[in-house]
Amino acid sequence: MTFTAAVSGASGYAGGELLRLLANHPDIEIGAITAHSNAGSTLGELQPHLHSLADRVLQDTTPEVLAGHDVVFLALPHGASAEIAAQLSPGTLVIDAGADHRLQDPAAWEKFYGSAHAGTWPYGLPELPGHRADLAGARRIAVPGCYPTSVLLALAPGFAAGLLEPDDVVVVSASGTSGAGKAAKPGLIGSEVMGGMSPYGVGGGHRHTPEMEQGLGLAAGEPVSLSFTPTLAPMARGILTTATARVKPGVGYAQLRAAWEAAYADEPFVRVLPEGQWPATKSVLGSNHAALQLAFDDHAGRVIVSSVIDNLTKGTAGGAVQSMNIALGLDETAGLTIQGIAP
Amino acid sequence: MTFTAAVSGASGYAGGELLRLLANHPDIEIGAITAHSNAGSTLGELQPHLHSLADRVLQDTTPEVLAGHDVVFLALPHGASAEIAAQLSPGTLVIDAGADHRLQDPAAWEKFYGSAHAGTWPYGLPELPGHRADLAGARRIAVPGCYPTSVLLALAPGFAAGLLEPDDVVVVSASGTSGAGKAAKPGLIGSEVMGGMSPYGVGGGHRHTPEMEQGLGLAAGEPVSLSFTPTLAPMARGILTTATARVKPGVGYAQLRAAWEAAYADEPFVRVLPEGQWPATKSVLGSNHAALQLAFDDHAGRVIVSSVIDNLTKGTAGGAVQSMNIALGLDETAGLTIQGIAP
Amino acid sequence: MTFTAAVSGASGYAGGELLRLLANHPDIEIGAITAHSNAGSTLGELQPHLHSLADRVLQDTTPEVLAGHDVVFLALPHGASAEIAAQLSPGTLVIDAGADHRLQDPAAWEKFYGSAHAGTWPYGLPELPGHRADLAGARRIAVPGCYPTSVLLALAPGFAAGLLEPDDVVVVSASGTSGAGKAAKPGLIGSEVMGGMSPYGVGGGHRHTPEMEQGLGLAAGEPVSLSFTPTLAPMARGILTTATARVKPGVGYAQLRAAWEAAYADEPFVRVLPEGQWPATKSVLGSNHAALQLAFDDHAGRVIVSSVIDNLTKGTAGGAVQSMNIALGLDETAGLTIQGIAP
Amino acid sequence: MTFTAAVSGASGYAGGELLRLLANHPDIEIGAITAHSNAGSTLGELQPHLHSLADRVLQDTTPEVLAGHDVVFLALPHGASAEIAAQLSPGTLVIDAGADHRLQDPAAWEKFYGSAHAGTWPYGLPELPGHRADLAGARRIAVPGCYPTSVLLALAPGFAAGLLEPDDVVVVSASGTSGAGKAAKPGLIGSEVMGGMSPYGVGGGHRHTPEMEQGLGLAAGEPVSLSFTPTLAPMARGILTTATARVKPGVGYAQLRAAWEAAYADEPFVRVLPEGQWPATKSVLGSNHAALQLAFDDHAGRVIVSSVIDNLTKGTAGGAVQSMNIALGLDETAGLTIQGIAP
Repeated sequence: MTFTAAVSGASGYAGGELLRLLANHPDIEIGAITAHSNAGSTLGELQPHLHSLADRVLQDTTPEVLAGHDVVFLALPHGASAEIAAQLSPGTLVIDAGADHRLQDPAAWEKFYGSAHAGTWPYGLPELPGHRADLAGARRIAVPGCYPTSVLLALAPGFAAGLLEPDDVVVVSASGTSGAGKAAKPGLIGSEVMGGMSPYGVGGGHRHTPEMEQGLGLAAGEPVSLSFTPTLAPMARGILTTATARVKPGVGYAQLRAAWEAAYADEPFVRVLPEGQWPATKSVLGSNHAALQLAFDDHAGRVIVSSVIDNLTKGTAGGAVQSMNIALGLDETAGLTIQGIAP
Repeated sequence: MTFTAAVSGASGYAGGELLRLLANHPDIEIGAITAHSNAGSTLGELQPHLHSLADRVLQDTTPEVLAGHDVVFLALPHGASAEIAAQLSPGTLVIDAGADHRLQDPAAWEKFYGSAHAGTWPYGLPELPGHRADLAGARRIAVPGCYPTSVLLALAPGFAAGLLEPDDVVVVSASGTSGAGKAAKPGLIGSEVMGGMSPYGVGGGHRHTPEMEQGLGLAAGEPVSLSFTPTLAPMARGILTTATARVKPGVGYAQLRAAWEAAYADEPFVRVLPEGQWPATKSVLGSNHAALQLAFDDHAGRVIVSSVIDNLTKGTAGGAVQSMNIALGLDETAGLTIQGIAP
Repeated sequence: MTFTAAVSGASGYAGGELLRLLANHPDIEIGAITAHSNAGSTLGELQPHLHSLADRVLQDTTPEVLAGHDVVFLALPHGASAEIAAQLSPGTLVIDAGADHRLQDPAAWEKFYGSAHAGTWPYGLPELPGHRADLAGARRIAVPGCYPTSVLLALAPGFAAGLLEPDDVVVVSASGTSGAGKAAKPGLIGSEVMGGMSPYGVGGGHRHTPEMEQGLGLAAGEPVSLSFTPTLAPMARGILTTATARVKPGVGYAQLRAAWEAAYADEPFVRVLPEGQWPATKSVLGSNHAALQLAFDDHAGRVIVSSVIDNLTKGTAGGAVQSMNIALGLDETAGLTIQGIAP
Repeated sequence: MTFTAAVSGASGYAGGELLRLLANHPDIEIGAITAHSNAGSTLGELQPHLHSLADRVLQDTTPEVLAGHDVVFLALPHGASAEIAAQLSPGTLVIDAGADHRLQDPAAWEKFYGSAHAGTWPYGLPELPGHRADLAGARRIAVPGCYPTSVLLALAPGFAAGLLEPDDVVVVSASGTSGAGKAAKPGLIGSEVMGGMSPYGVGGGHRHTPEMEQGLGLAAGEPVSLSFTPTLAPMARGILTTATARVKPGVGYAQLRAAWEAAYADEPFVRVLPEGQWPATKSVLGSNHAALQLAFDDHAGRVIVSSVIDNLTKGTAGGAVQSMNIALGLDETAGLTIQGIAP
């Protein structure tokens, strides 16, 4: 059986990546492809890498155009998805790649986004404890942010196993520039970003912090507080997260390693690397895979976990397709690859 | 029906790319994976992006290990493939990703490689006139070089249509560093190549020149002479070729464009872009696709063709798999993607 | 004696590079720093690398603000410099980093720029035969384009020595993205340009072609025709030019090499590399140096010259400062470096 | 008065950067240039960016060759400098760019380097409290490591002012690949590092940790413990450090900012950026400048400081020249630039 899927926001990076994956998906037929200001253009003009879809014309992003598909992907700016979703049939699987439906706490949403909270949908990170069951049969799914995906995969096993102190988690992530989107901003032109690194949004104000604290808190069963610093790296894709947390008294390396290995032993898309091998973002480029390694810095009393994902694949569109597969009862790995493109 | 395939040279870039493609190929089961000095290592140590094959152990590259497969891929240094191929059954499909069996002229081989010519095998570039038929049912195939693939796809239509002068073709290509292989050489370390460009092997001595002249000459029906300058670009993958030839008297843009469009109208992996759109190597990253654009510089009396491929995919491993598909009677596109990974 | 210098267009890349060089120039005091839409901002906001000038406030680009300096640098859009220059004293040294005053042929200007020709000023490439004398004492100087600088340095010695055929010169250049300026355009954001190459403006229409043909024609003493293809490389700075021309009958490598070596034997900023060493753009990063190498492809009957410059230094601001030094009677190398920044 | 300087290790990155700076230094004449396995080569073969020194021949690194200079720079592997220094006159200024003489605690040296401690020399980071006075007139100087330079500049003001808790400092740094040296290692070739990030040496074992703890402890007047994770970024030069420490109870942003601004108010090479502007490694490329910004994450109770330096300039050779200037009584900024090369 083939399902039909519509993709909105198709001129952006998330939309382009969704189309790339769906074009190779054995159970999906791509229906409407929509955009806002780029409606009327061909996809070939906007996403020249999608050769087989080059002649498709982008339609307007309206409920009418999106209606009538089995699955609708929303890759829209903040605040735009709730209104459209409300006009789509409850039986349609709506997958929101934006932030609107990720947070459970309306106050956190309002603090960081400054608008009314749209509600909470099942959270599309099946590797977190209990989440896969929530996604089975769901008809509304919120795709996690790319930074939260990398941080939650890095630290959730330790919190779920009760090995980590819930306060004073410190995270520094380096992201490729595609995480900043496709809009042409002066600080993002190639001449400015190639060959250099810089931080941004430092100091607790990053919008992804509450999403990280929410997910880790659910795993821990108690509130978790976290300091997060994102940095911009001179690469188009990939996130390398360095996540550290203090371990509880008496916890040692063997316990830590066992907890992480157990958590991901049966996961198709997450791998704890053999000891001595550290993850590289290039090893997951274009794939839905996440690779992790952990160390115990007994000098500092901290576990240090390195995780890598492709921000556009496992961090956005791949995570969305994986969740779709679960919701529709398909093979969870359909249309997704485990191998990265390297070198 | 599933075919078994062995891959030698699995620790290098060509071998790694072959394994990446074969792991996703619906009709192939990967058998022996072999290497030379790295035999005994796991693939995960050497090709960390091939997550699903990480625990596979590399065997020695011997005829005994390679025997008993339906297909054997040889990704070996120059001069090593003939001896091994001779010890494999004539019914085994042997695909040589190296240079040994590409040239028809033994003298050209000996001039550029300094050793005895190993013989000529069917040439795995099905888009050239007549070549697809040669590959159907073949049991020995020579995979074209990456630079020749980009140059032949760029210019063959014009020569086949009799529109171009056969002398004084001028080609300048920019290649990603993976074309130089995985061996650690001082000039290839990241600090040296990032952020800069340089030429290499300039002045007619490049080993790929006779292969280009051979292919264009076959298309033209007369000898073609060519000046080729390769340059090294600060990117891991991709070739951008700028190929120019003088047009015959009276030939104009419309004729040129019609010839190129006709040549590739039915090709699944080659596309002449719409007018006004120029190809970018990123649009074909990881894919088996080639994209072209052409201009007629009437001031200079030259056609200028830009072509882009991924040197490891269409330029090596993808071309090999495409040829394998034809030889085995499979769908020519099986296991290969048309979409690139972008951005 | 110290001269005062004003820099207009200070928020762009050419303006920023001029300020970087002038801040280290022993004989120059920086006066007014001006911009258009960014007037009122501090330089630190716009050019964060110019730490010692961070608190300087940009003024409006008007004749009044620019007046009263010994030297005025114009780094303005096409068509804007003539009007301002006309309002500056004839005794002021006005150096135009834009294109307006480079071409001698009004018809060529009008064809490529579509506006009235502003006139011709002495051409600031002192390494061309006869040009240094024109610059001594000049009070109006046109700075060459970055591509023409790389092409003229590459080929002028052969034309001046009468060794090259004047028709059918073929040039392919790869430029860093700073050559495209600082304006945020969709195709120039880091995600699009990192890791890939693409051509642009192909087919004879490039605005720099007449400037190249003019300079080579002056060297040759007869008209030269040229096909030029620029490509965009994933690096912020640098131009690698591959320039080829057919040699006249009977000319061989020894004659070619002797001509190039003689042409640059006494030049402080141009070096023909020892045989066997090829130039790399990184070797001239941030410097006013150009490095060349040449080969004779006797198979094709062409000389192939590779040249590298930093497009913003020798290709723009460094060439401007070098010309200023000559015009003011200073040491030609004052304020300029010969060493590149590498790796 | 001109001083003569010898540079050993001239074929490596530190040696090359020393020569680049010394070639532009108004008070220094470059004497012997030495290497180990590359002795006998010209500098042009090994450091093609040092155009004005291209014909200089590298000599053997022996005390005899290095003797007779006013200044000797040692850029040698660990453990090699003590023996050579012992054979140079006590009146010669010997500046060790290696690690041998940085640590005060022999036990820490032996733990991380596994050899006998060579002794402690004045530490060449004049911006640390009290250090400039130690360098005046010194004849032996240990150049700090590049990571420690970035971390000490980031955090010392807060510890010196008594605002930070001495335990649980967490630091994550991203370095360009030149920090890993010029030796060709498989993991460092361009194809592997371009377009990706990876951590290395994670878990407390990094050799630079004791040097960081030593410097911060001296500033704090009590022991400081620190967790350090270095990562490798796809760029040739630059370090971005994200350094976080818990603030003492009652300390707020205003106090923090005042402490940092006061510490660097008179420093020629360190700048706390205006509020709202974050540092970028490209803004200090090739310069001896360091740029900082700080934020107070009151949610986490941590100060987060971002610092950028060029690892080869301020982090190695520039710091060495700055210390030399102080030791010889020259202008501290002689031969060094404050402006970075950007874009």
